[in-house]
Amino acid sequence: MTGKRLDPWGKGGIENYENLFKEFGIESFDKYRQRFSNNRYIRRGIVIGQRDYGRIAEAIEKKKPYAMMTGLMPSGKFHFGHKMVADQIIWYQKMNADTFVCAADLEATVVRDIPLQEARKIAIEEYLTNYVALGLTEKNLTFWFQTDYVVPYYRFRDQLSKKVTLNELKGIYGDDLTTGKIFSAITQAADILHPQLAEFGGPRPTVVPVGADQDPHIRLTRDFSGRFVSRHAADAASSEYKFIPPSSTYHKFMSGLSGGKMSSSDPSSYIALTEDPKTAEKKVMSAKTGGRATVTEQKELGGVPEDCMVYEMLVYHLVESDKELAEIYAGCKSGGRVCGECKKYCAGLLTAFLKEHQKKRKDAAKTVEKILGER
Amino acid sequence: MTGKRLDPWGKGGIENYENLFKEFGIESFDKYRQRFSNNRYIRRGIVIGQRDYGRIAEAIEKKKPYAMMTGLMPSGKFHFGHKMVADQIIWYQKMNADTFVCAADLEATVVRDIPLQEARKIAIEEYLTNYVALGLTEKNLTFWFQTDYVVPYYRFRDQLSKKVTLNELKGIYGDDLTTGKIFSAITQAADILHPQLAEFGGPRPTVVPVGADQDPHIRLTRDFSGRFVSRHAADAASSEYKFIPPSSTYHKFMSGLSGGKMSSSDPSSYIALTEDPKTAEKKVMSAKTGGRATVTEQKELGGVPEDCMVYEMLVYHLVESDKELAEIYAGCKSGGRVCGECKKYCAGLLTAFLKEHQKKRKDAAKTVEKILGER
Repeated sequence: MTGKRLDPWGKGGIENYENLFKEFGIESFDKYRQRFSNNRYIRRGIVIGQRDYGRIAEAIEKKKPYAMMTGLMPSGKFHFGHKMVADQIIWYQKMNADTFVCAADLEATVVRDIPLQEARKIAIEEYLTNYVALGLTEKNLTFWFQTDYVVPYYRFRDQLSKKVTLNELKGIYGDDLTTGKIFSAITQAADILHPQLAEFGGPRPTVVPVGADQDPHIRLTRDFSGRFVSRHAADAASSEYKFIPPSSTYHKFMSGLSGGKMSSSDPSSYIALTEDPKTAEKKVMSAKTGGRATVTEQKELGGVPEDCMVYEMLVYHLVESDKELAEIYAGCKSGGRVCGECKKYCAGLLTAFLKEHQKKRKDAAKTVEKILGER
Repeated sequence: MTGKRLDPWGKGGIENYENLFKEFGIESFDKYRQRFSNNRYIRRGIVIGQRDYGRIAEAIEKKKPYAMMTGLMPSGKFHFGHKMVADQIIWYQKMNADTFVCAADLEATVVRDIPLQEARKIAIEEYLTNYVALGLTEKNLTFWFQTDYVVPYYRFRDQLSKKVTLNELKGIYGDDLTTGKIFSAITQAADILHPQLAEFGGPRPTVVPVGADQDPHIRLTRDFSGRFVSRHAADAASSEYKFIPPSSTYHKFMSGLSGGKMSSSDPSSYIALTEDPKTAEKKVMSAKTGGRATVTEQKELGGVPEDCMVYEMLVYHLVESDKELAEIYAGCKSGGRVCGECKKYCAGLLTAFLKEHQKKRKDAAKTVEKILGER
């Protein structure tokens, strides 16, 4: 059983997406790919799974109220793996979601041992500023720090703690449960449900875009959402709890530049969005590709774009046109396109993106201020 | 092991105080009995045990800053069992303690299923109003509801959750730990330590007067208090945590009127402080005494004041003079004083007390308002 459990506190590695979905009851995202093809990650199958996405799809298309909720862990450089999540947040904001973004400054302090003030600084300078440079605005946005939580939130979190047994938590999170993990799990559930509290807009569909390793939190939260019934009609504190089970989407993680996991703690595995373009270029030039041992071999057998970190950068971030991407893929497969030229092409696109993005970061200050002022 | 564990969520029955103290490392209160003989419960050995009381004794005598912290569970009528705790709170307030009283309205809602508004009403009309009628004032008093907790408190409580393992909690609370109990235990510890947070007055000796069944919370809290070291000198959020291990006192519970446990859920077991004096008198007249089967036998063998609920009322609440009490005791033992006359005497004192107290309750409104206004 342990092998089949997802660890939301682990390193985020998922061996086989299709299998995990079978084992955990996550559904494929395929049926929504065409309907929301204006989202690059959806269109290209990077958003691979979902729970209850039907009510989100309906809310988007019929312009009904719904919420998007996500958190960020301010613990390092904002890199292209984070950009994927940011792009999704921004897409939902454009699709009229009430947008909730929580900066987990407390979690960064207690779990990752980052001083609170530094965690707040990272949240603003790395995460929020990059979000804004990527397109996040103050429209329908609730951005807050965990340490700014307000009383109705805490009251609610305490009530959640009475709604789940330790055995249920062990069933979801494994036997190596700790006191800290229990608090963290209940906190995650409260985070996800709280946009539906009366104080924050009331019951409505809520989508949480996550990596598949975060599914245990989604399952716990969905369990919770059915466990509140009004016991005291006269009592606001309990009768106000009415939830629509949250929906979720699951995306494939980007790989690290050397083919392993992309990790904030290993700068050689990622490119930061504040990276000096020269350094970024060098990182691309030394990234793992799907190329063969020699150019001759490559021209004969063709490359393996599925195992290429450079191609992955193009798919996730740098090439918007599907037609162009298909040509690159075909060129690689046929052996006509070799790694050296492909890397240079990627580095060119990346450099252009970074320069433009870093200019936008400078212009982001005003919007960042507005967002922080409104929290 | 299980038989030797104290259950803070149980019914509060303690079979043998001396044994428990040996098993759990609680020390006798004897050496402080004479020093604080102006406290009836201390003088008469009702406050029987303590941990680290030395620093409280010193703070009281040398008029140094210290705090007294206690909570109340607003779930029923305020009776003479509660009065014992109230009298102690008031005594510490008079002895210059910074006095912290927390009304556990949230706990009453989530654990005892009492609507939040009703719990708040009980806290004010039963507990706080009786406290004031018994002598509590607004001086150096912080009275608050759990649902009014402020952010620094919650931030701190979350940090506590990372400082204790599940196995440690099981060691203290037993294997039948639940998610709710874990939250409750961490909450109790945060309650007890929070007067020492920078926002609430900083590190100083703190005494928590409790029944012996609450000792697990004290032990957990004392463990916590040593687990904070400043990891980041520059970081206010962690460096501000510096605690003096809290001290505690343990009192003997009053027995119920029929000799069993005094319980809020059984009105025949207690006399409420708002009880109609006529009803109260009847309850005394039918209380269990230490009398013999017949008056003849009683005159011959003498009574057993140790097993007498009427004598207990006199000891705990109604007779201030030790000399008078000693005479009553001797009279009973010798067989000269029979139960009928003793009950009548007790009923008379009780009626006088209740009439006076209920008059004071009417005058309490203004102080209650001041206290609630200042929270």
